[in-house]
Amino acid sequence: MSAETTSRAELLGRSLVAGTVTAECGAAFHAYSPQDGSVLEPTFYSATIEDVDRAVVAATDAFAVFAATSGQERGRLLRAIADGIDASATDLIERAHMETALPRPRLTGEVARTSGQLRLFAQVVEEGSWVMARIDTADPARTPPKPDIRSMLRPLGPSNFPLAFSVAGGDTGSVLAAGNPVIVKAHPAHPGTSEIVGRIILSAVQASGLPAGLFSLLFDSGYGVGAALVQHPGIRAVGFTGSFHGGRALMDLAATRPDPIPVYAEMGSTNPVFILPGALQERGEQLADGLYGSFTLGGGQFCTKPGIVFADASRSTAFTERLRSTTQSGPSFPLLTDGIASTYKRAVAHRGNLQTAAGQSVNIGFSAQPILLETTGERFFSDSSLAEEVFGPTTLLVHCSGIEEMLHAAHALQGHLTATILGTENDLEQNAELLRILETKVGRVIFNSFPTGVEVCHAMVHGGPYPATSDGRSTSVGSQAIFRFTRPVAYQGLPQSALPATLRDSNPLGILRLWNGAWSADVKA
Amino acid sequence: MSAETTSRAELLGRSLVAGTVTAECGAAFHAYSPQDGSVLEPTFYSATIEDVDRAVVAATDAFAVFAATSGQERGRLLRAIADGIDASATDLIERAHMETALPRPRLTGEVARTSGQLRLFAQVVEEGSWVMARIDTADPARTPPKPDIRSMLRPLGPSNFPLAFSVAGGDTGSVLAAGNPVIVKAHPAHPGTSEIVGRIILSAVQASGLPAGLFSLLFDSGYGVGAALVQHPGIRAVGFTGSFHGGRALMDLAATRPDPIPVYAEMGSTNPVFILPGALQERGEQLADGLYGSFTLGGGQFCTKPGIVFADASRSTAFTERLRSTTQSGPSFPLLTDGIASTYKRAVAHRGNLQTAAGQSVNIGFSAQPILLETTGERFFSDSSLAEEVFGPTTLLVHCSGIEEMLHAAHALQGHLTATILGTENDLEQNAELLRILETKVGRVIFNSFPTGVEVCHAMVHGGPYPATSDGRSTSVGSQAIFRFTRPVAYQGLPQSALPATLRDSNPLGILRLWNGAWSADVKA
Repeated sequence: MSAETTSRAELLGRSLVAGTVTAECGAAFHAYSPQDGSVLEPTFYSATIEDVDRAVVAATDAFAVFAATSGQERGRLLRAIADGIDASATDLIERAHMETALPRPRLTGEVARTSGQLRLFAQVVEEGSWVMARIDTADPARTPPKPDIRSMLRPLGPSNFPLAFSVAGGDTGSVLAAGNPVIVKAHPAHPGTSEIVGRIILSAVQASGLPAGLFSLLFDSGYGVGAALVQHPGIRAVGFTGSFHGGRALMDLAATRPDPIPVYAEMGSTNPVFILPGALQERGEQLADGLYGSFTLGGGQFCTKPGIVFADASRSTAFTERLRSTTQSGPSFPLLTDGIASTYKRAVAHRGNLQTAAGQSVNIGFSAQPILLETTGERFFSDSSLAEEVFGPTTLLVHCSGIEEMLHAAHALQGHLTATILGTENDLEQNAELLRILETKVGRVIFNSFPTGVEVCHAMVHGGPYPATSDGRSTSVGSQAIFRFTRPVAYQGLPQSALPATLRDSNPLGILRLWNGAWSADVKA
Repeated sequence: MSAETTSRAELLGRSLVAGTVTAECGAAFHAYSPQDGSVLEPTFYSATIEDVDRAVVAATDAFAVFAATSGQERGRLLRAIADGIDASATDLIERAHMETALPRPRLTGEVARTSGQLRLFAQVVEEGSWVMARIDTADPARTPPKPDIRSMLRPLGPSNFPLAFSVAGGDTGSVLAAGNPVIVKAHPAHPGTSEIVGRIILSAVQASGLPAGLFSLLFDSGYGVGAALVQHPGIRAVGFTGSFHGGRALMDLAATRPDPIPVYAEMGSTNPVFILPGALQERGEQLADGLYGSFTLGGGQFCTKPGIVFADASRSTAFTERLRSTTQSGPSFPLLTDGIASTYKRAVAHRGNLQTAAGQSVNIGFSAQPILLETTGERFFSDSSLAEEVFGPTTLLVHCSGIEEMLHAAHALQGHLTATILGTENDLEQNAELLRILETKVGRVIFNSFPTGVEVCHAMVHGGPYPATSDGRSTSVGSQAIFRFTRPVAYQGLPQSALPATLRDSNPLGILRLWNGAWSADVKA
C-alpha cells in the first residue's frame, strides 16, 4: 500500500518506510488524552528490526542522489514540507491538542514556528554561503610550489536519525538542509501528530521527484527501534531530545560502536536565574509575575523552564510574597503523559518540606498543580539532589545570603541550556564577574527576560555544556543547527569542471567565500 | 627552580608544570639515536599523577584570564612562540636530528612550517572574523516581540590536552588561538626536542605577562600520564596523533567519563591512490617515480603516505617495471623508534609472498628497507588484512582488472585522510563516479599530485571519517583547526557595554558578521 493512497484525515497507525506503509507486525500501542486519560484511536504498531534495516538501506541509496542536489533543490523540498504543514494546520492542531492537551493557540504558534523554521533553512541553503567555502589558489612560483586547495562543508554521511523534538522540527530541517536523508523515530505519546507530519514530509519528497528513502518514520512503544537505529552501521549521526538517562544511553551506544558516531542529545537543564538586588528592589512584583509565567508555561515542560532561582530575597518581601500568592491561585496543568505526571508528583513530594505555595489540584487526566519550593543557599549547597531538574510546573527559589553566595552558586553550576540575569544595568556592571562565569556554563545568557522563549534565528544557540547536551559545540535551534550534520572536504588540484559549483573560480552561486584568506563574494576569473 | 634560570642548550629532562620544573620522581627513560640505536643523554623523568593534577589546576586558573584576552593579545603570544622557535632553530634541528634521524633539510622545513603555522593562527585571531559573529537585532513591533540575540564562538573550556604532533604544532597553536590553556604530553621518543620547544613556549607565555598555567609539558615513558589527563575532570578536550589502538583507547576513556569530552585523534590512513588508464599510458614512468618518492618520504612515516595503489597496471608495464627497479635501487631509511622498525619488519615479512622488489637493507640502528608489494584485486578483496596500514617505506600495488574493480575498491573503503586520483582530465570526466565516491570517504581528494605534502592554509582539511580520525567533522591542519576547541555562546538582551567587543553594534573590531542574516563588516550604529 502506498502512503499516498490513503486520505490524510484517516490515520494509518503504521510506520512509513521509504514511501511504503509497514505491516502490523510489532507491538501495538495507543496514544492517551492527557485531559482525562482516555485511549485515543487508532491503534499504532511498533516497527520491527527488519523495518529499521529497510529504512537505513533506502536512506543510504537516497543519500547518493540527495547529497548531489543544489541548494535550490533542497530549498524547494524544505518549502514544500513547510507549505504542506501550513495547509494541514487544522488537522494537525486538532490531533496534537487531543494527544498533548496543549492549548490550541500555543499549538497554532508551534505549527507556524515549525514551517517558519523549515523556511529559514530553505533560505540558508538557497543563499549558499553557509558551506564556508575556502579557496587557496596555487602559486607555482613558490618553493615548494603551493597547490590549489579548496574546501567546503558537505553532508556528514549516508543517513541520520533524530528522535522527538517533532517530526519536522529543527533536527529534521537541518539534516535535510545539509543534504542527508533522515529516519525519524516518533514519540509514542503523540503518534497521530507524528503520522500527519510524516505523511506531509513524504508527499513533499515524492512530489520533488527525490527518492522516497530520503525519509522514513518509525513507530515504537519501547526503546528497541531507537537502539537498533543508533547501532546500525548505515547511520552516521543521531539527534535526540529527552531525558538525561535516555540521552546518555544513546551516547553510550554510539560511543561503543565499532565506528563511533556523533550524538546530538538535548537532555535537560534547570536554567538558573540570578536576580540582582537593584531589580529586586525596583520591580519585585513584576519579576515574580514574569517568573511564574515562565516556570508554568506549557505546564513547566519547556526544556528552558527556569527551575532554580537565586536571589537575596530578604531585599524584597514583595517579590517572595507575590510569587507565593500567584502560585497559590494558579490553575492545574495537564502534563503530556501519565509517566511525566507521576514523576512530577514523586519529585515534588520528595521535596515536600520545601513547599511554600501550591496551586489548584485536579484529579483527572495527567494533571499537576503548580508548586513553589524555597530553601536557603546553605541547604542548597549541602544537598546536591536539589540541583536536579524537575519536569513540570515548579521552581526552586534559593534564598542567598548575598552576592558572594550567588557567585559561589554560579561557579558550582554544571552545564545548562541557559542562564538568566535579572537586574538593572547598574547591577550588571557591579557584577561583571557573574556574567563571565555564566558564559562558560551555558549556551545562552539572557538579560532581563525569561528563558522559555527560544527564538528561531541565525544567532540562537540552544545547546550548552554537558549534561545539558551531549555536545556543547552545537545548537539544535536556529540556522547554525545545520553545521551538526556536515564535515569539511578539501579538493586539491581539481580542474574547474570537476569542482562543485560552490568552489569554482567563477563563483556561479555568488556566495561569500574565504579566497586566499580574505572573505569575498566576488567572481574570480 | 624556575625553568628560565637554566640555559636552553642544557636539557633538564623534567616536566614543566605551570612554570616550575618537577622533581625527579617518576620513571626514568632516555631517547635513542635511530641511526645506531645508542642512548642519548640526558635522562628524562616521567611526570607523576600529582604533577598532572597541578598542571590542570593551574590551567583552570589560567583559563579565566586567557579566555578574556583579545585577538591582539593572543596573536602576540603566538608570534612570540614562533619567534622563539625561529631563534632556536639551530639547537632544535640538531637535537631533533639526533632523536629522529630525519635529514636536516627536512627538519629545517619542519621548523619553518611550525613557526609559520603559529603565525597563521596569529593572523586569524588578530583579524577576528573567525568567531562567526551572528547578530539578530530586536524587533519590539513584532508579535511576539523579537529579542536581541547575538552569538560567537568562545573557547571550549578550562583546558585541553594535545599529545604529540609536536609540542608547538597545529594542536597547540589552535588551542591557544581559541583562548584555551594547553597541557602537552611529550612523545617519549623525542623528549629533548619537546623540552626545547616547551621552554620556548613557556618563555613566551611568561614574557606576555600571562599566567604560567597556560602551558605545561609532561614527560612519561608509559601511558599513565596521558590516561590521567584524559580522565581529569578539569580537561575539556583532547588532541592526539598516533596509532589506531592508542587513539581508540583515548576515545573510549573520554566517552566513559561522567562528563564525556571531545577527542580529536588522528589515527592512521592508507591514503588510497587510483591511477586511471589515460595517465598510466601517457606517463607511466613519471607516475612510478612520483609514487616511489611519496611512499618513501620521511621513511614512509607520513600519516598521508600512499599505502595502497589501485591501477589496471596491465595497461602499462613501463609503470610497474619502473616502480620495481626504483624500489630495488632505493636506500634504506632509519625509522623513528625501535618499535616502529620492528613492527615494520614483522608487517612486511607477514606479506612476504606479495613482495616484488626490495631496496637496500642495513643492519644498524632502526633502519628499514623500501619494499614494494603487489597483488591482484581478487586477492585484495578476499583478505581484509591487506587493507591495513603499514607504517614505513612500503606500498601495496593492487592490479585491478579494470575500472569496475577500482570503483568496487572505492566503495569498500573505510574513512581515510586522503584519496588521490592520477589521471588525464579526460580520465576524470569519464570516471566522475570515482570522485563522487571518494569525496564521501576522505577529508581531502587530490588530483594529479601526491598526498604526502600537507599545505598549511585556510582551505586544508587534514581529517576524514573514522577510523582515519575520531571525529571526521574537523581538521587538525590549517586555520580551520581552531574550530575544534570552541563552542558557540548566545547573548540575549545584553546592553552594549556588557557585550564582548565582537558583538557590539559599533563593530569595533571591523570584522565580518552575520547581521540579521546578511554577512557584512559594516558598523551598525
